[in-house]
Amino acid sequence: MRNNHGGHDNIKESSEHMKRTYAMFQDVHVMIFIGFGFLMTFLKKYGLSAVSLNMLCSVLSIQWSILVQGFFHPHCEDPHIPWDDCPSSWGWVDINVMTLLNADFATAAVLISFGVVIGTTTPLQLLIMVFLEIVVFNINEYVGRGEIMTVDAGDTIFVHMFGAYFGLAASRVLYSKKHADSENAGANNISDLFSMIGTIFLWMFWPSFNAGAAAEGDAQARCVINTYLSLCACVMSAFALSSFLAPDRKFVMEHIQNATLAGGVAVGATADMVITPLGAIVIGFAAGLISTWGFHYATPFLSSKWKINDTCGVNNLHGMPSLLGGMLSVLLAGIANRDMLISLNEIFPMHPEKGSGWQAGVQMSGIVVTLLFAIVGGTITGFVMKKVGEVTRNNDTTVHHTHNGSMTTATVVKSKTAIPQELLYDDNAFFLVHQFEV
Amino acid sequence: MRNNHGGHDNIKESSEHMKRTYAMFQDVHVMIFIGFGFLMTFLKKYGLSAVSLNMLCSVLSIQWSILVQGFFHPHCEDPHIPWDDCPSSWGWVDINVMTLLNADFATAAVLISFGVVIGTTTPLQLLIMVFLEIVVFNINEYVGRGEIMTVDAGDTIFVHMFGAYFGLAASRVLYSKKHADSENAGANNISDLFSMIGTIFLWMFWPSFNAGAAAEGDAQARCVINTYLSLCACVMSAFALSSFLAPDRKFVMEHIQNATLAGGVAVGATADMVITPLGAIVIGFAAGLISTWGFHYATPFLSSKWKINDTCGVNNLHGMPSLLGGMLSVLLAGIANRDMLISLNEIFPMHPEKGSGWQAGVQMSGIVVTLLFAIVGGTITGFVMKKVGEVTRNNDTTVHHTHNGSMTTATVVKSKTAIPQELLYDDNAFFLVHQFEV
Amino acid sequence: MRNNHGGHDNIKESSEHMKRTYAMFQDVHVMIFIGFGFLMTFLKKYGLSAVSLNMLCSVLSIQWSILVQGFFHPHCEDPHIPWDDCPSSWGWVDINVMTLLNADFATAAVLISFGVVIGTTTPLQLLIMVFLEIVVFNINEYVGRGEIMTVDAGDTIFVHMFGAYFGLAASRVLYSKKHADSENAGANNISDLFSMIGTIFLWMFWPSFNAGAAAEGDAQARCVINTYLSLCACVMSAFALSSFLAPDRKFVMEHIQNATLAGGVAVGATADMVITPLGAIVIGFAAGLISTWGFHYATPFLSSKWKINDTCGVNNLHGMPSLLGGMLSVLLAGIANRDMLISLNEIFPMHPEKGSGWQAGVQMSGIVVTLLFAIVGGTITGFVMKKVGEVTRNNDTTVHHTHNGSMTTATVVKSKTAIPQELLYDDNAFFLVHQFEV
Repeated sequence: MRNNHGGHDNIKESSEHMKRTYAMFQDVHVMIFIGFGFLMTFLKKYGLSAVSLNMLCSVLSIQWSILVQGFFHPHCEDPHIPWDDCPSSWGWVDINVMTLLNADFATAAVLISFGVVIGTTTPLQLLIMVFLEIVVFNINEYVGRGEIMTVDAGDTIFVHMFGAYFGLAASRVLYSKKHADSENAGANNISDLFSMIGTIFLWMFWPSFNAGAAAEGDAQARCVINTYLSLCACVMSAFALSSFLAPDRKFVMEHIQNATLAGGVAVGATADMVITPLGAIVIGFAAGLISTWGFHYATPFLSSKWKINDTCGVNNLHGMPSLLGGMLSVLLAGIANRDMLISLNEIFPMHPEKGSGWQAGVQMSGIVVTLLFAIVGGTITGFVMKKVGEVTRNNDTTVHHTHNGSMTTATVVKSKTAIPQELLYDDNAFFLVHQFEV
Repeated sequence: MRNNHGGHDNIKESSEHMKRTYAMFQDVHVMIFIGFGFLMTFLKKYGLSAVSLNMLCSVLSIQWSILVQGFFHPHCEDPHIPWDDCPSSWGWVDINVMTLLNADFATAAVLISFGVVIGTTTPLQLLIMVFLEIVVFNINEYVGRGEIMTVDAGDTIFVHMFGAYFGLAASRVLYSKKHADSENAGANNISDLFSMIGTIFLWMFWPSFNAGAAAEGDAQARCVINTYLSLCACVMSAFALSSFLAPDRKFVMEHIQNATLAGGVAVGATADMVITPLGAIVIGFAAGLISTWGFHYATPFLSSKWKINDTCGVNNLHGMPSLLGGMLSVLLAGIANRDMLISLNEIFPMHPEKGSGWQAGVQMSGIVVTLLFAIVGGTITGFVMKKVGEVTRNNDTTVHHTHNGSMTTATVVKSKTAIPQELLYDDNAFFLVHQFEV
Repeated sequence: MRNNHGGHDNIKESSEHMKRTYAMFQDVHVMIFIGFGFLMTFLKKYGLSAVSLNMLCSVLSIQWSILVQGFFHPHCEDPHIPWDDCPSSWGWVDINVMTLLNADFATAAVLISFGVVIGTTTPLQLLIMVFLEIVVFNINEYVGRGEIMTVDAGDTIFVHMFGAYFGLAASRVLYSKKHADSENAGANNISDLFSMIGTIFLWMFWPSFNAGAAAEGDAQARCVINTYLSLCACVMSAFALSSFLAPDRKFVMEHIQNATLAGGVAVGATADMVITPLGAIVIGFAAGLISTWGFHYATPFLSSKWKINDTCGVNNLHGMPSLLGGMLSVLLAGIANRDMLISLNEIFPMHPEKGSGWQAGVQMSGIVVTLLFAIVGGTITGFVMKKVGEVTRNNDTTVHHTHNGSMTTATVVKSKTAIPQELLYDDNAFFLVHQFEV
């Protein structure tokens, strides 16, 4: 729950919410369902699964998230009475447009983790991940934003960092050499073009993601403008480094699809601060470099040395840029002087009297706590997913019918992982598919 | 014309309209042109026709609809004078953003009927259908919403039910066994992915469809939240039943593309009422089950027993869920007590003194009248379309050139239906197409 | 910088901007990145390059444009003091949501020129074009809109006419017979479907493009409604003439993808005037005819007789319709009587006392000046681009590796143009691509 602007309970506020937030909420909604969904269709044989499982996980995440958030932020039956003064101990879940927006933010974290393990996990494993991750996500946000008072306008820390390292930890537990060796894991020029639909919708609407829950007025406008400029600069550095690293100085689609978005991640935690347009451009430029570098060097390294398979390169798009963005929020809180903190008290709402050192420590604590919750939570979730994969294996994988036009081929499969090797990253694993024929 | 909020005529209201309705209007516009257009590209050889003819029919429908709606709702030249007091009998058509939104709603009904007969009808037949359907649509809405006073915030009855049964009635008249037997009628994994673009944009923006013309404030917020929750639940039940019905427990793309949307249809008529979040979820869940069941059982049954060919499964997505939604509006009007009706008088604007039984009867009458208009109107339109198909047949179908890269093949064709069998569901029937080559 | 509504500098206005303009800005943003980007994916082998280079050129254009516009419209450090009274001569660039919107408008001009030369130019040549074109664009707009006071609500003259003739002039300089002869320049049914994503998003959001910077209230509502109606009529005439011109009376996708949009171009300059709904429909209908005719006759003529290669048919979609629209603005300014001009003084802000003949001359001058700047600027830019292509040729084109699945083929190439013939309109020229395999 990003916003702390008090209770919004009566008809006027309901109308005001619709006017002020609904268009931005729909932008974020497009990012969740079209953006994430199509971004992951780059897998040449897994497009239908990517966009459909993205939809399934998201709706479960949204509904479960509304309940869990409601548990952490209960309301009195008469919404004008604050919860602490409520005569009854029976809490109500308040649902308004901000609730839907916050559910979308939580879902973004889930989808980031989904991007790490896509193609190597069963739908049942994914649904279990959603259930557990939403709970840990809400505990972490309650502690980090609510208790520690870490500031994070664009959810760099609480969504991107949390989702990335939760998923990477789970992927470490689920590791199998077969995942990395599969020939299905690549792209082709048609799947790459579908993926660009996702990339561009994410890129365009990212300012709404970072500004959706910001304080109205100047802070919100700063969020939009800083994010927009950071994203522009990030595209330039991603293209430049991509052609520098690739053979023949050609551009690599994987970089363009992903690293162009890292500027939105990195600027999130400081997007509502006075970082100046040049500052936003520098942040975005650096994020594009780090992310592109990551696809070239870090992903193969993680796979071979650390035994972490990262299907979509989530560490490069969400992981490392969120570390950069989180550190920037420590730095900026640390160098802000006291007058600035007080004038920015809509952004740093607590302890302005304690000065900037205190706020820098608060930011650092939020990062450390988030990494802890993500890695421990992700590891435990990974073990549960692995166990579920082993238990359901025998029931699922006896006979597979592959539909190819009018012909149907039956294959008997035995395997130690949840999905047999030849059906990794393949729509035929869980979807009834008719192959394209010329 | 869904809204009854009096005349909006001066500069201030023009500006207010833009602020309040324009973003939602654009969401609905996306549903009409991208949503419906791409949803129907699932046909493996008919994607270009689907999206292009969707565009052509829509623009004719929009323009014709503005005129016909203007005829049913005339304005005085001085817009401040109500029409009944107007000194002149010469009516003016008032055009504002609400007019454009209402034209899009009427177009949705036309496109639903279009989905029944797509691939088996000529562009000329479709344009005739648009012309006739818009007239019947407006008469029905004038009678149902204007005279009978049936309440239907999300157009479950006046758009979805009307469009579905109008199209199904026309399709019964146009039936040919060749339509059902065509091998072109299927999908492949690329056309399925294009279709998901349509599905997801429809799914995301459905809250705007149901809330676009609702009374500002709480009623509009309820429309958004109820529709959103119903759609989420619908996705879950559609996926669950799909994997239960299909061989090998796999998911079927046809279900995911269509049945996931049935929750938006079913909740429409009651979306602005106080159905509670749980109620919305139950409605959506039931709609997803009914719709998925329909694709598995009802469509083959309609085709073989009732001789109704339903290309896109419109009966499953719009027909049966709208019957469910209509009946729910009868039920909810029936159980509402008098105080509730009076407090909800922005929703039930008339006869609160007559009680809930009266309003339940009003809802039921609206449904019966709509079904009558749809089935009679669709049957007559079907006969006109059939006649036109027979008349134009000889002129159109002499020689067909199929372009395949640089090679052109000429085929001489004789046939009894408007389109020769091998060109059913085939872009080559009416579009100059260059086939994909590897 | 389309809007002249004074300085918007304080918190209230920042919040007001967000509410009033942000949703329309995002519509325009979608037009730039999805609309233009996917429209150009019709090229069967060049989809990834089209959408990626569209993104790269746009972000450079946006950032450079904010700087150049800031140079032409400096602000005082205290934004409440007008620039002329500013004690310092050091200007500041004011960035708000309107700035971002105006940067998108300037980028549209660049992308129009990009559409002329796409597939035949290197990324470096394109980036140089962006740099030079943005400077000339801003000088022309400063002279035309700022000094001459030409009225152009939808940027028919300053964006569409300027961008089209700038690009065509550059293309004349860059002409090579190889460009026109390439077999890669065509489409197929999959690339045509991707292209329709671009077409439809451009078509739907064009009302936001024409109304985004209009005066609030009635003028803005007129922009929306006139553009919407013109676009509807344009679709009808484009389809009709397309089937009339093509063999077998079939529809041609190139016409549907492009000519359906000409109504938005043609109505732009007069969209905020009282042209009546019928007037808007007539304008759109005419634009659709001219544009479709252009694809059939003018493009081949330009290529063979005038040696101008126009990859996307920009002359038909933006060039000729903008000439029609510009002339209509001359005509309408000429026939407006004095009272009308004064009542419309939010539209014609200056010289109402000088009468309609004066305003007609002002419109005509704006057109002539724009054509001059476009053609001279485009020609000079073309020579610079040609020189750059010659210089970089030898470094770039020695060995090309074509990746096809796991196989890699190396080709040694020598050529006189910037791109060797077999890599014209081919993703493999600058992108690392894995070809689709069945």
